[in-house]
Amino acid sequence: MSHNSFGHLFRLTTFGESHGPAIGCVVDGCPPMLPLTEADIQQWLDKRRPGQSRFTTQRREPDTVRILSGVFPDEASGQQVTTGTPICLLIENVDQRSKDYSDIKDKFRPGHADFTYLEKYGIRDYRGGGRSSARETASRVAAGAVARKVIPQVSIRGALVQVGPHGIDRDNWDWEEVERNPFFCPDAQAAAKWEGYLDSVRKSGSSCGAVIEIIASGAPAGWGAPVYGKIDQEITSALMSINAVKGVEMGAGFASAAWSGEQNADEMRMENGAPVFTSNHAGGVLGGISTGQDIVARFAVKPTSSILAARQTVTRDGEETEIATKGRHDPCVGIRAVPVGEAMVAIVLADQFLRHRGQVG
Amino acid sequence: MSHNSFGHLFRLTTFGESHGPAIGCVVDGCPPMLPLTEADIQQWLDKRRPGQSRFTTQRREPDTVRILSGVFPDEASGQQVTTGTPICLLIENVDQRSKDYSDIKDKFRPGHADFTYLEKYGIRDYRGGGRSSARETASRVAAGAVARKVIPQVSIRGALVQVGPHGIDRDNWDWEEVERNPFFCPDAQAAAKWEGYLDSVRKSGSSCGAVIEIIASGAPAGWGAPVYGKIDQEITSALMSINAVKGVEMGAGFASAAWSGEQNADEMRMENGAPVFTSNHAGGVLGGISTGQDIVARFAVKPTSSILAARQTVTRDGEETEIATKGRHDPCVGIRAVPVGEAMVAIVLADQFLRHRGQVG
Amino acid sequence: MSHNSFGHLFRLTTFGESHGPAIGCVVDGCPPMLPLTEADIQQWLDKRRPGQSRFTTQRREPDTVRILSGVFPDEASGQQVTTGTPICLLIENVDQRSKDYSDIKDKFRPGHADFTYLEKYGIRDYRGGGRSSARETASRVAAGAVARKVIPQVSIRGALVQVGPHGIDRDNWDWEEVERNPFFCPDAQAAAKWEGYLDSVRKSGSSCGAVIEIIASGAPAGWGAPVYGKIDQEITSALMSINAVKGVEMGAGFASAAWSGEQNADEMRMENGAPVFTSNHAGGVLGGISTGQDIVARFAVKPTSSILAARQTVTRDGEETEIATKGRHDPCVGIRAVPVGEAMVAIVLADQFLRHRGQVG
Amino acid sequence: MSHNSFGHLFRLTTFGESHGPAIGCVVDGCPPMLPLTEADIQQWLDKRRPGQSRFTTQRREPDTVRILSGVFPDEASGQQVTTGTPICLLIENVDQRSKDYSDIKDKFRPGHADFTYLEKYGIRDYRGGGRSSARETASRVAAGAVARKVIPQVSIRGALVQVGPHGIDRDNWDWEEVERNPFFCPDAQAAAKWEGYLDSVRKSGSSCGAVIEIIASGAPAGWGAPVYGKIDQEITSALMSINAVKGVEMGAGFASAAWSGEQNADEMRMENGAPVFTSNHAGGVLGGISTGQDIVARFAVKPTSSILAARQTVTRDGEETEIATKGRHDPCVGIRAVPVGEAMVAIVLADQFLRHRGQVG
Repeated sequence: MSHNSFGHLFRLTTFGESHGPAIGCVVDGCPPMLPLTEADIQQWLDKRRPGQSRFTTQRREPDTVRILSGVFPDEASGQQVTTGTPICLLIENVDQRSKDYSDIKDKFRPGHADFTYLEKYGIRDYRGGGRSSARETASRVAAGAVARKVIPQVSIRGALVQVGPHGIDRDNWDWEEVERNPFFCPDAQAAAKWEGYLDSVRKSGSSCGAVIEIIASGAPAGWGAPVYGKIDQEITSALMSINAVKGVEMGAGFASAAWSGEQNADEMRMENGAPVFTSNHAGGVLGGISTGQDIVARFAVKPTSSILAARQTVTRDGEETEIATKGRHDPCVGIRAVPVGEAMVAIVLADQFLRHRGQVG
Repeated sequence: MSHNSFGHLFRLTTFGESHGPAIGCVVDGCPPMLPLTEADIQQWLDKRRPGQSRFTTQRREPDTVRILSGVFPDEASGQQVTTGTPICLLIENVDQRSKDYSDIKDKFRPGHADFTYLEKYGIRDYRGGGRSSARETASRVAAGAVARKVIPQVSIRGALVQVGPHGIDRDNWDWEEVERNPFFCPDAQAAAKWEGYLDSVRKSGSSCGAVIEIIASGAPAGWGAPVYGKIDQEITSALMSINAVKGVEMGAGFASAAWSGEQNADEMRMENGAPVFTSNHAGGVLGGISTGQDIVARFAVKPTSSILAARQTVTRDGEETEIATKGRHDPCVGIRAVPVGEAMVAIVLADQFLRHRGQVG
Repeated sequence: MSHNSFGHLFRLTTFGESHGPAIGCVVDGCPPMLPLTEADIQQWLDKRRPGQSRFTTQRREPDTVRILSGVFPDEASGQQVTTGTPICLLIENVDQRSKDYSDIKDKFRPGHADFTYLEKYGIRDYRGGGRSSARETASRVAAGAVARKVIPQVSIRGALVQVGPHGIDRDNWDWEEVERNPFFCPDAQAAAKWEGYLDSVRKSGSSCGAVIEIIASGAPAGWGAPVYGKIDQEITSALMSINAVKGVEMGAGFASAAWSGEQNADEMRMENGAPVFTSNHAGGVLGGISTGQDIVARFAVKPTSSILAARQTVTRDGEETEIATKGRHDPCVGIRAVPVGEAMVAIVLADQFLRHRGQVG
Repeated sequence: MSHNSFGHLFRLTTFGESHGPAIGCVVDGCPPMLPLTEADIQQWLDKRRPGQSRFTTQRREPDTVRILSGVFPDEASGQQVTTGTPICLLIENVDQRSKDYSDIKDKFRPGHADFTYLEKYGIRDYRGGGRSSARETASRVAAGAVARKVIPQVSIRGALVQVGPHGIDRDNWDWEEVERNPFFCPDAQAAAKWEGYLDSVRKSGSSCGAVIEIIASGAPAGWGAPVYGKIDQEITSALMSINAVKGVEMGAGFASAAWSGEQNADEMRMENGAPVFTSNHAGGVLGGISTGQDIVARFAVKPTSSILAARQTVTRDGEETEIATKGRHDPCVGIRAVPVGEAMVAIVLADQFLRHRGQVG
């Protein structure tokens, strides 16, 4: 059952609300004997951490992770390693600024889950979005760090390829550039333009959407579980579960709908005695199983719903009113979605690797 | 575990290969006392059945379904009803034309799962695609017919909104038109144009992609299971599991990435004493939970990989060669994906309804 | 979700009612390239088949199994092998003797599921027990035959060790004797006595219970998934799911409650350079993980509820009445439970093997 | 997947090792709006807590539970209630007495999971049993407290009915007596005798087994999910997952194997217009579905493996040696298994209630 869990053999269960005592997760099914320290996880959390530039929320959360279980020192190597038992990762909520929630307590913020949580459960923790806050994604990033350990042969990298209406020039793609600008943008020229654009968005109290691309390199051919555990299906599911995501595509994606079969065909040749593909419109997956090529997924994040401009809404009691967000928010929540998307793809691949090894050996 | 199963409380397990003795499925967890006959299911299978126009494959499969279990006559009503036990639906393969498979037995068809199945399993039933054939989707449609019985209050309809590069004009949308043309197209003018376009594609032995839209009306607010069983997550997972699908989006989808928060906000007002939304960019889902609006999903189908033009490929033995498809194939496999998409959305919603009722009552 | 499915990586889903058109199952997650024919499965079904001696029901069901999917000829070996896709096994119901069901249609048979199915579902297929019939266990035996192929290194054998109040003498245990008498009894002397006892039970229209022991030899140390997928937990779950089973124990079982820690300890020594245990009170499992010793489980089957003597009961309409069973029934349903118990243990071990291989490699 | 999770709609995931920083669990799928405070949970933990009499281990663990998520104040009632989101319960390990583990680090303790964990994972946290410690059961008791809130109409009580070879006299059964003696014994006379017996066991450094009976009253007819989610199957699975349990039975259990069909039949009569059973040999379950009677399960706990007398064993390095336990241990671990068994039955019933409500309404 997948209320708050994701994955099968490698399985993540998350818990916690934005302004409760802590958030965290349990990672179950991790293979034993993998070196794992808190620092291994912290480096990825730091990538997602808010407040690192003026383009993300100024909420100050150190997001310090503690490993509560599932690791032990290995005498032979002297390293702390996984033991095969569940790994609980805990992140305490520090910056629970005591503030006046009266505005959002009774008003439904457009684009937020306020209305639907209340309709479903009859109650909601309204402080900072509670369970529906993007803060939950810190747990995903922490679990993704563990997943990467399971499949060290696979490199999983993400980049922002569109901000608002502004895309990148793929000819300028440079992975090193991704580390240099505050947008995880692989195109230095685009990044320069985005800075001005995002400043104007931020200053006007508005927000914008984004498109993120995740590329996993190094997965061999043969991972995936047709027909309802397809690797592209599970990547889609994983990415769509991230807050504010409205679309996911693999390889050529929606563009391929306009193509002919001749254009779309990824032809095959031999190279160094092994079959290779001359293109990768499939995004590294055929019939739900990896081809050995790069696995390429893209997902669209809607503009941050919390904006300064007042929007019409209603209250719990059925009064018409309006609401504007004054708090600390990301002008483009898509930026911080990059490490989250990477983590989710890592989790899918780690799980698929273990499942493949289980069934096929 | 989701190799060949989908869903939780309402759960589908499919089996069968394209040219084996039969395909079919087991539907488990169906509520009892729902009227269900073979005719109830057959009507939906007939919608997907090949060979109904010159625009779909000429393979002749009657796709006659038999209910092997899970139903019984209800004395009170005189109707055959579900009993709450698993429903096995069997469809025999009839048109297993004995033909020469030597060509595809050893060559990998670009865009097909030939290579990946062999890489994964070391063996594959190559006849007509075997397990990876779109024929498997008949089982989905049959199960979808059962799912519709579980949620009679919800109307689930699909339409083709793009064929190759040719989209519809949304102002022309007419659900009745969908039943009148062989493309499930809601725009009569577009349908007329598509006919010529698809004839040329068909005659040239080429193929094209498509975009399908599924709209579910009547689901109340409150269905969905955050944060890893989100209703949009599961719909996109369900649609992505369909053969040849390369992208999925909800509501405004990828387009919303280019918008501002002001544009994207679905504002709320009161109407007849109840909250209503003034737009539906969200596609009927907020925070993974239904809003009570129409649930709107779109998915992109790549062009049929089987085309007349020879494509470069390699053999199992590592010889470079080329392959052209001579058999009976759909010029646009996206057409027949419409009833399949409807079925998958029905399955997700039936499952979410039962899960919601389980947790919340 | 486990309504009608069992297992995780190796997963069984069964369907069908006693007097419907067919029963059967889908086995999902089976590794590829395992030789598998209908004859491989039929041999185990024949062991369970009714009507083979005067001590089991005289219902005549050939229980002929058909493999509908998941197998294909392997060119290299010339054998039919599994392909890694779901294996559907179908057994048609032949001896659906058209008879008068008016008696059991409205009366609740004590010890049967008539009352509870009706309370749960509001309807039931009352013919021959419908879904709650022991006939469902034929699907388990068929799936168990597949499971044995997954773990050829493990030998799984069962024996009847008690019939009514009459146990065996363990000093007489002879596996070959199990094949010689109609009770799967490993003690020739006990078997001789049971014959007279069971004849008297049968002739008087009464019934008796039994205890079955299953021993799996050859599983290595290390299988099992603590703490909620323990190998003994899953074996007891699997055995308890068999119709009429009222108790399950591992190794010394209930007897160990009366022992001291000194008596119960399975001490360890070295033998040929490997650790060995000097006893096996644990039944081959410690902490939910296999020790490498024989895995030993026992389960108790209650006396067949269908007996000639009239018992007090009530009707659907709330009338007090009585009921006696005139049909064809097993005087000791425990006899035919032996191959069913073997099959369920095989399914658990195949699943645990794959899960272990998945997590640990 | 059930490595460290149990249940479906109501789902428990536990984590933590005996001597790590903390143990705990995540309870997912809990219905919203149930009043829940830490005190509600603490009362059950206190029942299981060690060191409450001289008959249980003298380890001093306050077992103070913290609720980290999933609750929120309800304005209307002023109570803290569940929100429908995952409930994380954390129990810090306090009494991690720094001691010399050199003895158990390299020696396999007979009856413990030392050998099997090492065989499986290649590493183990040997401090106090690590993950295989009975300390994990505190998480179960905490989750069981939440489960009880889900099904307030059901009363779940447990009692010790056998200690070593000494059973109770069922004619003396008095639930109030269970609260008065340190053994959860319902028979005052037996409790008096057990005191002397257990003192001698304790003083001699030996140990003994026990049998526990759990009775759930108030569950209506109709809960349970045949055929692989049977209510008795899941209770058996739940109880067998508890450390040191070697057997489980329902109702008449193993005794029924020796009975005739006439003896075993639970006949039915009408009483106040409703069907009633004149006996309950079935233990409240027929065909895997509850009958509305008391649900009765019994489980056997083996004698504590840690005893003062030296036992033969081997080291990791293959040296023959012996080991005696000097630490603080329970002479009869079965005593503290009573609240654990209650909790596990509560978890099964809460889950089955939700699943029944999901499927049938």
